[in-house]
Order: sequence, then structure tokens, then C-alpha cells
Amino acid sequence: MIKTPYLLFLGDAPDQLAAKVAIGIRDWRPDNAVGQFRMEGCGADLGLTDMSLEEAKAAGAKTLVVGVANRGGVISKEWKKVLVTALEEGFDLASGLHNLLRDEPDLVAVAEATGQELHDVRIPEVEYPIANGKKRTGKRCLAVGTDCSVGKMYTALCMDAEMRERGLKSTFRATGQTGILITGDGVPLDAVIADFMAGSVEYLTPDNDDDHWDHIEGQGSLFHVSYSGVTMALIHGGQPDALVLAHEPTREHMRGLPEYTQPSLEELRDMALGLAKVANPACQVIGISVNTQHMSDDDAKAYLAKVEADMGLPATDPFRYGAGKLVDALEAI
Amino acid sequence: MIKTPYLLFLGDAPDQLAAKVAIGIRDWRPDNAVGQFRMEGCGADLGLTDMSLEEAKAAGAKTLVVGVANRGGVISKEWKKVLVTALEEGFDLASGLHNLLRDEPDLVAVAEATGQELHDVRIPEVEYPIANGKKRTGKRCLAVGTDCSVGKMYTALCMDAEMRERGLKSTFRATGQTGILITGDGVPLDAVIADFMAGSVEYLTPDNDDDHWDHIEGQGSLFHVSYSGVTMALIHGGQPDALVLAHEPTREHMRGLPEYTQPSLEELRDMALGLAKVANPACQVIGISVNTQHMSDDDAKAYLAKVEADMGLPATDPFRYGAGKLVDALEAI
Repeated sequence: MIKTPYLLFLGDAPDQLAAKVAIGIRDWRPDNAVGQFRMEGCGADLGLTDMSLEEAKAAGAKTLVVGVANRGGVISKEWKKVLVTALEEGFDLASGLHNLLRDEPDLVAVAEATGQELHDVRIPEVEYPIANGKKRTGKRCLAVGTDCSVGKMYTALCMDAEMRERGLKSTFRATGQTGILITGDGVPLDAVIADFMAGSVEYLTPDNDDDHWDHIEGQGSLFHVSYSGVTMALIHGGQPDALVLAHEPTREHMRGLPEYTQPSLEELRDMALGLAKVANPACQVIGISVNTQHMSDDDAKAYLAKVEADMGLPATDPFRYGAGKLVDALEAI
Repeated sequence: MIKTPYLLFLGDAPDQLAAKVAIGIRDWRPDNAVGQFRMEGCGADLGLTDMSLEEAKAAGAKTLVVGVANRGGVISKEWKKVLVTALEEGFDLASGLHNLLRDEPDLVAVAEATGQELHDVRIPEVEYPIANGKKRTGKRCLAVGTDCSVGKMYTALCMDAEMRERGLKSTFRATGQTGILITGDGVPLDAVIADFMAGSVEYLTPDNDDDHWDHIEGQGSLFHVSYSGVTMALIHGGQPDALVLAHEPTREHMRGLPEYTQPSLEELRDMALGLAKVANPACQVIGISVNTQHMSDDDAKAYLAKVEADMGLPATDPFRYGAGKLVDALEAI
């Protein structure tokens, strides 16, 4: 287990999106985040108190969490200086980067010398099976996106929280580093070996009570060529009963792929549902989750109303306006 | 490099399909296969001379190739006895199993003591990039199947051979252990980390002459829930200009998944083409490759004629009747 509370390391994140991991921890486990550590040129700001390592230590922080994701996930020299100092000052380190803490000899040496721990939450700790496709008991909901980083995890977390508030049986199932750091458990899906991806999702979402819902954290997008295989494994390994379409309307192109435009919600619905029915013929698209963070309240509400009319499905921004509509739709199944 | 020729180890393969790796080597590099080694209960027979280790050694074999694939790929105790003896008698070992030779301490110890080599062709030897989706020069063809093990690799090998016979520019691009054992190069896609799958396919099929075709070895099926994520990565990483639909008409259910039936060729066409157009809007389905090995000549020809009429596309069994029709269709693009 990772020791809490955390100091959230934002490094030199180019923008707010790159600090997704830290933002997730702040929003879903605020008690675990005593402050943020930012380097020169950092383009992200979580609105937490900026702290030096010393100040965070005095405030009780036990672990420095690398709350920033780069493409490819490399630990730069500039980061390294901070991480080494943190170990020397008595912090554990936790990270979800591809570039593992344990693969850096200097970090390993300092951690050993100081008795501090290195946590790579990206590393699978289980030998996952190959998926067998057998129908499981219980219900599962998966958000699929028009793009990466459009709010799939938040959708699942919001729906899970809303269901538990209503006294319904629900579990958030983490498939990425942020989710794992938030819940302390899950499958680091993008680090799983190709052949075992779908099997790891079956493992993550086992048989359950008939009225229990798993809210599976989505990854990537069927329309994002870098990561679509991971999304595919979630759809077939998760055998969802319900799909939520997740969308960010102000995106000008697919994240990281300037040559690619986003699909429409109709295209996403048809593609995702067609594939989901392979594993679960009863699967339904139950609603739409719109990430309206870059829209005014008026614009957001007008957009949601238009989407509801166009698609004939409930639409909300679950983080801004609550997940009630989506949970209503699940309860109606 | 793996030393040739080989003795092909079939172990206790339950059936002929399980010996796919060995069959591929026999068919495409017959000079490399001096014989087959079968254990009690072996349900596969390649029609090669059955040899003891001693006989194969005398016939010149240098490497014992594990030419059989199990679900999960475990090296059993019974197999281990043969493999250890082979090392002691002067063979190298080569394998494409998930269960690596190098992860078996006894095999490693005996290999070191005897000076023999262990080759795990399943292990990626390159740090693949994350896919960037950028359009590449040259042309690419990918076979997609209604199921796993329906003849996608043979289709690519047949088309590659036919093109080279016609003096056209063509390369077979291996993505699995058999292909890698046949060609000595490729990407062991099912062992690649999820996030890098599509990038590894981009790496495998780089920029090339405008009139050069890569024939990419297919994997899995969009309709096989265990492996569909791997297929997805091939479609988006390979950004194919041409798709060939691969089908085995006598299959009663999806391989290894008794609860799942095969899709129709129409369903496969629509699903695969829709997804392929995300990466390459110009992609076309150019023909159909039918694996007729379990059909009489009359039945096969009647079936192919019906498929051609129904689908409006050239259909052949490229291994039985030649890949001419499919290459004609490629040349017409």
C-alpha cells in the first residue's frame, strides 16, 4: 500500500491535461493531497498550496506522487534531481510512468540507502489469464470516448459515487495509474502484454451480485490510432451491459494526432455498440457524458440539450451537473 | 540468428491446429525442417520423418524448434525432459511460447553448461514507439479474419510470393512467432505492451517505394474477444490500403470460445473497413481468402464461386489455388 497523504509532483507539465493523474487524486481523494510541487515552466496548476519538499514534510506528506504523464513517460534529468532529494528527505515515491522508478539505478540506490519505497503503479502484479469470453454475473458499465482524455474515468467515478449515494451496489474498477492511485487497486491496462489485455479486464470485473454494477474505467478511443487496441480489449474483456459515450466538444483534433479529427457521437455509438454486442448482445448505449470544462454554463446546457435531442439519450456533464441522469438510465435497464 | 536446419518439436499437441508454427516452417522453408519429434498422445502429424534426437542430430539438425502453441503457452514437465536432453545432445532451442525458455532455470543452467543457445522469438527486441498515425509512403495489405487461425498468415505469404514471382516489389512482415521463425525478422505483436502495439506495427512497416507492398501478417480477429485488441492495433498501426477478408467456412464456433459463433463475411467487411478508414480513408476490401482445407475440391470451388457472387469480390484459397486473383486486385488499385 502507498502511504498517504501525498505531495503531488507536477514537474514541468506543459499544460493542465498533462497533470491528469494529480488532478484525479485532488478531486477524488482531496484528503490525500496536502499540496503540489511545481518546477520552473510548469503549465499546470491544481489550485493546491505550492510546497517545497520541506514544507510538505512538515505538513505530514509521506509520498511524493508523480502526478504528471508525458508521451512515452520519460523521467528527465530535471525531475530526477527532485525525486532523489525527496527520497533523501524521507518521502516514498509513487509513479504511473512507463519509465519505471525501479529501472533508474540512482533512484533504486538512494531508496535502498534511505529505506524509502518506490511504487510503480503501472506494473502489473498479477499473471492475467487469456480472456475466455464466458458470461459473468452482475452488471458492467463502460464509458467509451470520441477521443482520449475526454472524461471517461471521471464519468465512471461520478456514476459510482452517485450509485453508492443512492444505496445501490457499485464498484469503480481502475484500469490506469490515476485510478489505481485513487483506489489503491486495479489493472494497469496499458502496460499489460497484448495477449492478456482482455483477460485482465475479465479478471478485474469478476462474477458479482445480479444487481451490482462495475464502473470500468475506460482507456483510449476506438478512433485514436495509438491506443484503440486497448479500448477494444476493454469492450470485449469487460462485456459491458451499458455503454456511456464520452465527448469533449471543443477538441480540434484527436489528442496528439493533428491529422485526425474526432468522430461524431453517432459514429462512436454505432462502432462501439457493434463491437460490444460481439461479447454481450444485450449491450445498450444508455447515455452521453460531455466534458464541458471549456464551456460557459449557458453553452454547456445548450449543448447538452441539443445532444439529448439529436441522440435521443440522456446527456450530462456528470462532474459539473451530477451523474443522476446516467444512473437513472442504468436503473431503468 | 537461429541455426538451421531444424528438428520440429510437436510435443503432445492435441490437434493439427496446435502445431501451426511447425506447419508454417514446413510449408514455407521446407529445407529447414529435417524431421518432426512427437511425444506419446501427439495429435499432430506434419508428414515429415519422425526422428529421435539422435537421428535428427545425425541428419544435421542444429536447433530443436518448439513448433506447437498451447493456450497460455506453458512448458510442461513432459516437454521439459525432451528439451533438457536436446540441449545435452547439442541442440539449440527456439520457441515462440509465452512461457519463455529463458525463464526456466533448469533450461538456462543446462544451456550454459552445454554452451547451447536459447532463442525466445516471442520477446520484443526493440523499444517500440507509441504510434503517431502519420501517413507513410508505400502500400500495405492486411488480412483480417472471421476468426483466429483461419489462414491470415498464409494469405500474406502466398500474396508476397505471387508478387515477387511477378517481379513486383513486396515484403512479408511477420507479426507472430511462426512468421518470425520463417523470415528471421518481425514484431512479436502478441507480446508487445498494450500502449506500444500500434507503434510496433508502424515500426514494422515503414516508408517505402510508392509501388512497394507490405503484406502484414494478421493476428486474432475483431470478433474474437480474447485477441481483438491485437487485431485493432494491426488495423490502425498498419493503416492498410487493402484488406483481405479471411475465412474458414467449416468452423462451428470461434476458436476456443464455444459460446461464440463466427460473424458473416459481410459483418467482417463492414466492421473492419469502418475501423480501417479511421487510419486510412482510402482503404478498400479487395478480396476474400477462404481456407478450404477441410473441403473437397468440388465443394471448395462451389463455395468460392458463391462467395464471389454474394460479395462482389474475387475469392480464392491462395494456398490451394494460388493468390493470383488477390494480387490482380492489388495491381488494380
